[in-house]
Amino acid sequence: MAILDSILDDLVAANRILAGLNVLDGFGHVSVRHPDRPDRFLLSRSLAPELVTRNDIQTYDLDSNVQDGGTRPSYLERFIHGKIYARRQDIVAVVHSHAATVVPFAASSVSLKPIYHMSSFLRTGAPVFEIREKFGMTDMLVRSNAQGEALAEKLEDQSTVLMRGHGYCTVGGSIPEAVFRAYYALLNADLQHRAITLGGSVTYLSDEEAVKYDETNRSVIERPWALWKQKFASKAQP
Amino acid sequence: MAILDSILDDLVAANRILAGLNVLDGFGHVSVRHPDRPDRFLLSRSLAPELVTRNDIQTYDLDSNVQDGGTRPSYLERFIHGKIYARRQDIVAVVHSHAATVVPFAASSVSLKPIYHMSSFLRTGAPVFEIREKFGMTDMLVRSNAQGEALAEKLEDQSTVLMRGHGYCTVGGSIPEAVFRAYYALLNADLQHRAITLGGSVTYLSDEEAVKYDETNRSVIERPWALWKQKFASKAQP
Amino acid sequence: MAILDSILDDLVAANRILAGLNVLDGFGHVSVRHPDRPDRFLLSRSLAPELVTRNDIQTYDLDSNVQDGGTRPSYLERFIHGKIYARRQDIVAVVHSHAATVVPFAASSVSLKPIYHMSSFLRTGAPVFEIREKFGMTDMLVRSNAQGEALAEKLEDQSTVLMRGHGYCTVGGSIPEAVFRAYYALLNADLQHRAITLGGSVTYLSDEEAVKYDETNRSVIERPWALWKQKFASKAQP
Amino acid sequence: MAILDSILDDLVAANRILAGLNVLDGFGHVSVRHPDRPDRFLLSRSLAPELVTRNDIQTYDLDSNVQDGGTRPSYLERFIHGKIYARRQDIVAVVHSHAATVVPFAASSVSLKPIYHMSSFLRTGAPVFEIREKFGMTDMLVRSNAQGEALAEKLEDQSTVLMRGHGYCTVGGSIPEAVFRAYYALLNADLQHRAITLGGSVTYLSDEEAVKYDETNRSVIERPWALWKQKFASKAQP
Repeated sequence: MAILDSILDDLVAANRILAGLNVLDGFGHVSVRHPDRPDRFLLSRSLAPELVTRNDIQTYDLDSNVQDGGTRPSYLERFIHGKIYARRQDIVAVVHSHAATVVPFAASSVSLKPIYHMSSFLRTGAPVFEIREKFGMTDMLVRSNAQGEALAEKLEDQSTVLMRGHGYCTVGGSIPEAVFRAYYALLNADLQHRAITLGGSVTYLSDEEAVKYDETNRSVIERPWALWKQKFASKAQP
Repeated sequence: MAILDSILDDLVAANRILAGLNVLDGFGHVSVRHPDRPDRFLLSRSLAPELVTRNDIQTYDLDSNVQDGGTRPSYLERFIHGKIYARRQDIVAVVHSHAATVVPFAASSVSLKPIYHMSSFLRTGAPVFEIREKFGMTDMLVRSNAQGEALAEKLEDQSTVLMRGHGYCTVGGSIPEAVFRAYYALLNADLQHRAITLGGSVTYLSDEEAVKYDETNRSVIERPWALWKQKFASKAQP
Repeated sequence: MAILDSILDDLVAANRILAGLNVLDGFGHVSVRHPDRPDRFLLSRSLAPELVTRNDIQTYDLDSNVQDGGTRPSYLERFIHGKIYARRQDIVAVVHSHAATVVPFAASSVSLKPIYHMSSFLRTGAPVFEIREKFGMTDMLVRSNAQGEALAEKLEDQSTVLMRGHGYCTVGGSIPEAVFRAYYALLNADLQHRAITLGGSVTYLSDEEAVKYDETNRSVIERPWALWKQKFASKAQP
Repeated sequence: MAILDSILDDLVAANRILAGLNVLDGFGHVSVRHPDRPDRFLLSRSLAPELVTRNDIQTYDLDSNVQDGGTRPSYLERFIHGKIYARRQDIVAVVHSHAATVVPFAASSVSLKPIYHMSSFLRTGAPVFEIREKFGMTDMLVRSNAQGEALAEKLEDQSTVLMRGHGYCTVGGSIPEAVFRAYYALLNADLQHRAITLGGSVTYLSDEEAVKYDETNRSVIERPWALWKQKFASKAQP
């Protein structure tokens, strides 16, 4: 129970932090796998992340059915979370965002690649999910388990998947890691755009460099997380 | 009376929200059609949107004459609103803005097109109103009913019209929808600029995708609106 | 005395406003011609604009000698102000800034031109002062009356002059007008950069359109000025 | 003791200021040489700069061993500081940052060069440290004395060194000077990017102009420093 308590605190904090860092605005969401039940995940009811409190968190199964008789509206795209948790046993947290700097890479033939160590989780380039491939002309949302599965397949064993005409998702082995990746994907997109438009040649991290730093990062991730909690989430609990 | 009351509250909130979202600065304005009189609209007297209170709202007919003997100065460009309401019976709210990221598309031969679902209301590209076509060399403002009519004609059945050397207007079936469109037009312009300057090929939303999401959006628009009211307009009423 | 009082209030407000609008940071300055003595101008002692109070304002003659036995350090570049007032009898206020978006145009062969009505004061393109032309290799500052005169000559009858490798100056017939121009020069530079990098053709304001709006602007400039005073300068007086 | 006291105050202020100016986020650090012991330097324990207080400052020797039996975790990259102080007797303060606008130049074949006087310390172009040259595939961090030495060698007698795929360091003869340079390197990178992407020819400061202003700057650096302390560090001391 103490663990669940602390996870719920972190999930509420993550909502506030992602809003404070401009990763999420009125849309987008962040979830965490249930610490006691790997076949369940925790996610707010349909609400702007900046307004989320513990009272808004609901429990879902991996088909994204709300549990415990919840009747409040759910996010239309909860299937993103359910199907990523179903396919990736290693994943503990998922962020879905429309952050401004990343969307252009989701619409462009140019790949999002790590320009510095902070975004080493992008490895050799984030894959792009084109919903038209399997589902034709849609409203662009991932609103079914079939669509969630197709997205999770595209993610494969990576940490980030872009969604054409829509946004992106990052995943992590903890809430801080998924939040960190969502934020530094946003920064990397801005930095890479700047580097490309300078017109010279650009050196990206090699896969080996990326893998090595991604490992190092786990030992220092507590540092920005502590800062973000203090800046954005100290008033988070109702 | 209760409906008018709530509409006035929302109109004051819209002024504060649009300033808070950097859609409006010292200039620009937002109006709403009168809920009881389709041949009237409500608009602040000439005042920076961030400072507008209920006491500043005036009633205008569709030729943009102030009603009820009002003597305080009106916005020079109130004709934008009157003539859009006159031509488009489906429209309930209008925003006119000079937001920074959109103006470049109004001056460029490159079309503003939807790069993600949030800006699906742009459909296959926003039309550009060139005031020189009918009015020659002017001070660029829409300061007569004839100019307002020409702008409304250019808008046609779209939701957004760009104004060369000036700015843009968005319209909606409600105040939240017009505000939403004004804000996401601004974001889309930034995102599209980024995508184009990356130098690869860019995939925009198809018309079918755009139409479908624009429909979906009506079911979720209350979510950002609730956030924006709490963030920017909770101190709005005097 | 009442007029001088109000002018001093506005000068302090202008310092706060220009800092609030990111036109000035720790450097740059704003001055006003003395209302009773056209051969004198008012300018803060050497101090970051955001910190200026009435007590910091000093009086200078047009050779930029401090009057009344003032012994506190003056801005190194006060000669900019003195020589513009000396050459341009029509000018009441001067802003000197290093604002980020404008400096690139001062270093580039591409001209800063008005992309929308708000920056119509740029007319057909702002002239660039190249200090090397007359003074060779310097520390880039305008630190003598000779350099101030050369800058004022380059300004000619325009409202804005860029300074290569340095920044820019705007002038106006009132404090609000010079501040307005300093701010919208900054915005225009960002918007024009966006328009150019989109890669299509760009339509700028014609000289006739620019002249007409610049005239119109005098009737509405009180609107943003009232907003800026309330937002940035309501705590300005000590 | 009074000098050490004032240096410690300034070091804490520098941490807060660099966070406030967006030069540092959860990562990066700033150090100062010990005023009494040139073979020692002062640096916070591993902590986000915005949270640093005097109690977090530790003393290190030039091999970056913590002194006085400190047991709290140190920054992984403290070797940057130690080896720069060892090699450059003239240096009193060092900043290490990942600031967004600079990283693209560290990854690009295009040199970071001074586009205006404020960044004259960049001289004729900042050198780039490519860690692969001597150390092959790493996690990109400078985590040993050998790597710190190689970085200090690349810095040579300059004030700024870029680090490929990572960030940059600035050094100065005082804390305010190193902070000033870290901030204006960030601004210069944005301005230079804008100038280059305008597509015309760009004139940079000549070496003579740069040297001259860098000298002048020492006489005015107290002005932004006073502003920054008041804005960002007035609550710095615990």
